[in-house]
Amino acid sequence: MTPISNARVLFSAVPKETTVYDISQTIDLESVALNGGFLIKTLVLSIDPYMRGRMTSPDVKSYSVPFALGAPIVGYGVGVVLRSDHRDVAKGKYVYGRIIPHQEYSVLPNLEGLIFLEKDPHLNWTVYVGAAGMPGKKAYMGWKEFSQAKKGEVAFITTGAGTMMIQLAKRDGLKVIASAGSEEKVEFVKEIGADVAFNYKTTDTREILAREGPIDIYWDNVGGDVLDAALEHAAIYGRFLECGMISDLNNIYAKSLTMHGIMVMRLQPKYDTEFYVTIPRALAAGEIKYSEEVSRGLGTVGHAILRVQEGTNTAKAVVVVADE
Amino acid sequence: MTPISNARVLFSAVPKETTVYDISQTIDLESVALNGGFLIKTLVLSIDPYMRGRMTSPDVKSYSVPFALGAPIVGYGVGVVLRSDHRDVAKGKYVYGRIIPHQEYSVLPNLEGLIFLEKDPHLNWTVYVGAAGMPGKKAYMGWKEFSQAKKGEVAFITTGAGTMMIQLAKRDGLKVIASAGSEEKVEFVKEIGADVAFNYKTTDTREILAREGPIDIYWDNVGGDVLDAALEHAAIYGRFLECGMISDLNNIYAKSLTMHGIMVMRLQPKYDTEFYVTIPRALAAGEIKYSEEVSRGLGTVGHAILRVQEGTNTAKAVVVVADE
Repeated sequence: MTPISNARVLFSAVPKETTVYDISQTIDLESVALNGGFLIKTLVLSIDPYMRGRMTSPDVKSYSVPFALGAPIVGYGVGVVLRSDHRDVAKGKYVYGRIIPHQEYSVLPNLEGLIFLEKDPHLNWTVYVGAAGMPGKKAYMGWKEFSQAKKGEVAFITTGAGTMMIQLAKRDGLKVIASAGSEEKVEFVKEIGADVAFNYKTTDTREILAREGPIDIYWDNVGGDVLDAALEHAAIYGRFLECGMISDLNNIYAKSLTMHGIMVMRLQPKYDTEFYVTIPRALAAGEIKYSEEVSRGLGTVGHAILRVQEGTNTAKAVVVVADE
Repeated sequence: MTPISNARVLFSAVPKETTVYDISQTIDLESVALNGGFLIKTLVLSIDPYMRGRMTSPDVKSYSVPFALGAPIVGYGVGVVLRSDHRDVAKGKYVYGRIIPHQEYSVLPNLEGLIFLEKDPHLNWTVYVGAAGMPGKKAYMGWKEFSQAKKGEVAFITTGAGTMMIQLAKRDGLKVIASAGSEEKVEFVKEIGADVAFNYKTTDTREILAREGPIDIYWDNVGGDVLDAALEHAAIYGRFLECGMISDLNNIYAKSLTMHGIMVMRLQPKYDTEFYVTIPRALAAGEIKYSEEVSRGLGTVGHAILRVQEGTNTAKAVVVVADE
């Protein structure tokens, strides 16, 4: 067969201008060497915010591997298998994954990073990189694993990847506050079930949250000042699900971190008995050591407070007011 | 009985000068009206960083009730009951709680905010507002409830209230990195078991964490740049226990919030089957709605990337590369 054009998208520069469309390469679909792998035709490609993180100079430390300049970028996509030397991969199968090269045809060495998909006849393949792909999974799995959603609670969802989240929250019986960046999106968000929807470009987020909150669950794609506003209007024991890439919370996301606020008054009902059975005995026995900065007399309180507030105390500050 | 002096510490100004020591009040211990309550003699008072949060003008919104100017401040303390009209409170009993007025003698109306204590003969009452009081409880209960500590993991503990935490972590078989503000504290921290201890005023925290980390558990009393450093050197699935009062994380603490980093790749093994059984079907049936911004042709990838990075895309961006 005559070689045909095999167009590619190559990483050409750090943003803003990031790719060039290159049609100089050709490929012979019948004879291209598979070397134990398989040949796919790319059907759809997903464009996602996380790709920005891979468009860095190799010198910059990043939690994802940088794209190689001059090579095709890779991302989530769906391809159909045209030929295969791989025993687990049959011609006509559809593969999905995050390692699909941005070129028309690719030879892939193995199934690493890929799964097989079967298409629902009522859906396009585009849906399998969106609502039925990585963004949908993030919403579905993040909600299932971490939301601890209870009927009647209030969720605040910043849109973008939030479309599915809004509907999952409504299915679980929550009140949903959603923010969007245009009147058109506000309307869409209301259509799919948001109880309160507002345009964050023309409406004060804090005002909405003060009136409609406090927030039990915050699904954060944004970070920054909106996160601050959500923190201000959070409910006791609120859950903050952090997915923002464009914020200083990158590490909370990248490392799947969990942050807990520790308020002893809310833990005491559960642990007080165990604490007093365990700890004073261990302290008295010297099994756990402690240190104190003791001053004597109620008149020393002012000075002790100053030391604590300046951080110049060297141990737990205590004032002995009286002997018995 | 002749009235005797009843010295008090009154809240006099927002910090730095916060209290005046006042000896103008007198009290007759035998005849002072109890009105159904009980009279205590204050034995010890605790001075804690959180008190700063109550030393605000009543106009400032705060998560704790401001002290009243001109009135005695209140805080954690231990008192002994001298007289009682309350059927549950006997003379000679010891009470502990966060509502002890900073005065020598107080009439308390009821037991709200108080518990009874029995003293271990080997401990002073001072310990019951420290290692066996609120700070000890915070460490013990926060660790028990949230650390998910596993033997061999690495804990980073900023000292202050961290003394007990270091020992709890060592008991659970963890490697402990501890920071302290003086050479003397560094020595103490090593004595009680820290594997790595350093003076954060003379040593680069990031250097230590890069060498001794990554950190599975961070017990944070500090916030700010040390928190940033800990985030940079956090392990995957790290747990951040936030107790800092002097930071912009006040709300994480005050509202007992939990922050989760959502990384879909780590959730897929658990949820992928359920997702594909549930979601494509719901999308196809129109039970869950979705939106897409579809462009056609591999040549549109560069433009699509730009729109996503500028945030000007109006829905999930997808490029259709080919029809089958």
